Amino acid sequence: MRIKVAGIGLTKFGELWDKTLFDLAEEASLEAIQDSSLKPPDIQAVFVANMIFSKVSNQDHLGATIASQLNIQGAAFRIEGACASGGLAIHLAIQSILAGTYQNVLVVGAEKMTDASISEVTSALMGAGSEAERQAGLTFPGLYALMAQAHMQQFGTTREHMAQVAVKNHYHASLNKKAQYPYEVTLEKALNSPCICSPFTLFDASPITDGAAAVVLTSASTNKGVYITGSAVATDTVDLSSRKSLTEIEATRIASQKALTQAGVKISDIKVAEVHDCFTIAEILAMEDLGFCEKGEGGKYIEKGITKLGGKIPVNTSGGLKACGHPVGATGVKQIVEIAQQLRKKAGLRQVEGANIGLTQNVGGTGATVVVHVLQS
Amino acid sequence: MRIKVAGIGLTKFGELWDKTLFDLAEEASLEAIQDSSLKPPDIQAVFVANMIFSKVSNQDHLGATIASQLNIQGAAFRIEGACASGGLAIHLAIQSILAGTYQNVLVVGAEKMTDASISEVTSALMGAGSEAERQAGLTFPGLYALMAQAHMQQFGTTREHMAQVAVKNHYHASLNKKAQYPYEVTLEKALNSPCICSPFTLFDASPITDGAAAVVLTSASTNKGVYITGSAVATDTVDLSSRKSLTEIEATRIASQKALTQAGVKISDIKVAEVHDCFTIAEILAMEDLGFCEKGEGGKYIEKGITKLGGKIPVNTSGGLKACGHPVGATGVKQIVEIAQQLRKKAGLRQVEGANIGLTQNVGGTGATVVVHVLQS
Repeated sequence: MRIKVAGIGLTKFGELWDKTLFDLAEEASLEAIQDSSLKPPDIQAVFVANMIFSKVSNQDHLGATIASQLNIQGAAFRIEGACASGGLAIHLAIQSILAGTYQNVLVVGAEKMTDASISEVTSALMGAGSEAERQAGLTFPGLYALMAQAHMQQFGTTREHMAQVAVKNHYHASLNKKAQYPYEVTLEKALNSPCICSPFTLFDASPITDGAAAVVLTSASTNKGVYITGSAVATDTVDLSSRKSLTEIEATRIASQKALTQAGVKISDIKVAEVHDCFTIAEILAMEDLGFCEKGEGGKYIEKGITKLGGKIPVNTSGGLKACGHPVGATGVKQIVEIAQQLRKKAGLRQVEGANIGLTQNVGGTGATVVVHVLQS
Repeated sequence: MRIKVAGIGLTKFGELWDKTLFDLAEEASLEAIQDSSLKPPDIQAVFVANMIFSKVSNQDHLGATIASQLNIQGAAFRIEGACASGGLAIHLAIQSILAGTYQNVLVVGAEKMTDASISEVTSALMGAGSEAERQAGLTFPGLYALMAQAHMQQFGTTREHMAQVAVKNHYHASLNKKAQYPYEVTLEKALNSPCICSPFTLFDASPITDGAAAVVLTSASTNKGVYITGSAVATDTVDLSSRKSLTEIEATRIASQKALTQAGVKISDIKVAEVHDCFTIAEILAMEDLGFCEKGEGGKYIEKGITKLGGKIPVNTSGGLKACGHPVGATGVKQIVEIAQQLRKKAGLRQVEGANIGLTQNVGGTGATVVVHVLQS
């Protein structure tokens, strides 16, 4: 498999009161199309990734809406799989190119979360989880906190290990002008911020974010450029209570093994990765389930600085969901944009030296959907 | 292109107070999987088509939810494009098979519309249209009524022509046990029912429906069975006011020409069709834009009985959206189920003699998305 990432586009992430979902989608899309040296009419299909706009703004049919806004008359789709919507849209866009049906496609992930009230957004986001667990009173911080508690008990992971994820990702975000929170935080600040759901403090959680990311994918094949060489999706039960383990996201293991096999590389070949740190424990689980370290060692692995810029395998150089922000439908696409920038050697202050193979991991819910991509230059 | 329709499944359509969306999706899916002689673990990807469940029941992530309910551990997606969600899901499932990524995939379209209040459902459905036109006070009956008024003025189409669509489709539904309204209506009854939006009476509109439809698509290729040989999507502006014409759905013309070319057949080769008669005028427009008759002649064409069972090209043998029902996310999948039954010669009292090539046309909004499929046996 060899799909060219021909263009990338990304808006500022943050609380963007003066922009609509459509403003954001257009800005990222036009940037990606321009970057690809194509024109809008060259795009034959548009894949829109979005989770909550239908609920908070009662606007569906985003595929055709955004396509016509961009003066693209081709096919258009909206893809949704909770917070994995972006990764799923990339995966399906790739299929349509591999099928030979479309040659140039646009994937745009966009989310406008700050126009609704916090209670409305919180309720909308719970649509990613199971009805039974919601009725039992669980929220997403609650679900991930259960996973964190189990990990702490079983493997001795500490609150400091988790806080280190936030400290690292804020440091990376401080080098990224597009990040929602482009500033550093200290370990003390992270640990002593208000508890939101034990063992989590505020700094263990990703924020509510507006933003959009776009990529143009093409069938073009030359020796130059960045290519997606592996793309895989795996699923699991939506309810956490039906899983075999609270301390493993099995779908990450399955999807990453498939994607790495497709790409013909090993996890040890990966030089840079963007993973789904919706909560700090999620990045620890990702390190283990992707195979960067042994099960139970994720906290210590991160503490060693291996995944910080300058370390052996920098992870979430964008700042991750934690500090770059988490506009849910955009996140899976933004991960591809960040890795493509790294592989193009255009990541500026965040540049990982020698980055030639990268990986993205995008999670829906507590791991009911996982999408893994491998990119190579 | 040659994608096998290996299995089909369909629930009763209607006001199904005793069933949830998940009951309906499971029933149709298991029927389709059993019909294909596969087992659930053989299915590598699940494509769920749904429009309003996220809004009326606050449950997203339907891909993983329904996949795990069926004990399928593969990839899973939710595809949305308003009332064209079903057709789009079929189109994307086909791409994933053509890509060589998946060999056996399930597409299930499901919608549960009667659990919400009428005002809630009406509001949810308006998400298929443009915000500007909604703010101007337009509803979908209003939008299609504008198209009908223009067609009447421009081409002399009459209320009787439109009512004939309802009479024909109710007759077909009277032969279909799965239909929501399996009974005939007279022309007088249709014409004299209450006006809902001039020139439409109640019988010009499709109903609010619960139901699900599923198909198993495979890469298997033998001489036997039913195959999808053409699949195309076209889009247009979501707002009707930006279109060149009120009396043509251009996306139908573009998508059908592509799909027919792919299949290597002409419109005159089609022996049976399921088209998107959300309002009676939509079936008249479909006849013209698909090329069954000249522009402006749709009303007279239907009046001649050509599209009634026993006629040359029976259209909407299921009863169509009008009388079989219109569970929005399921509709595009149900159209494939009906044509597959016809091509298998298993349509019972509705069987079209000599049916070997069929076509489906699935519309989102007022034609912002159109999906056309060609099936052959």
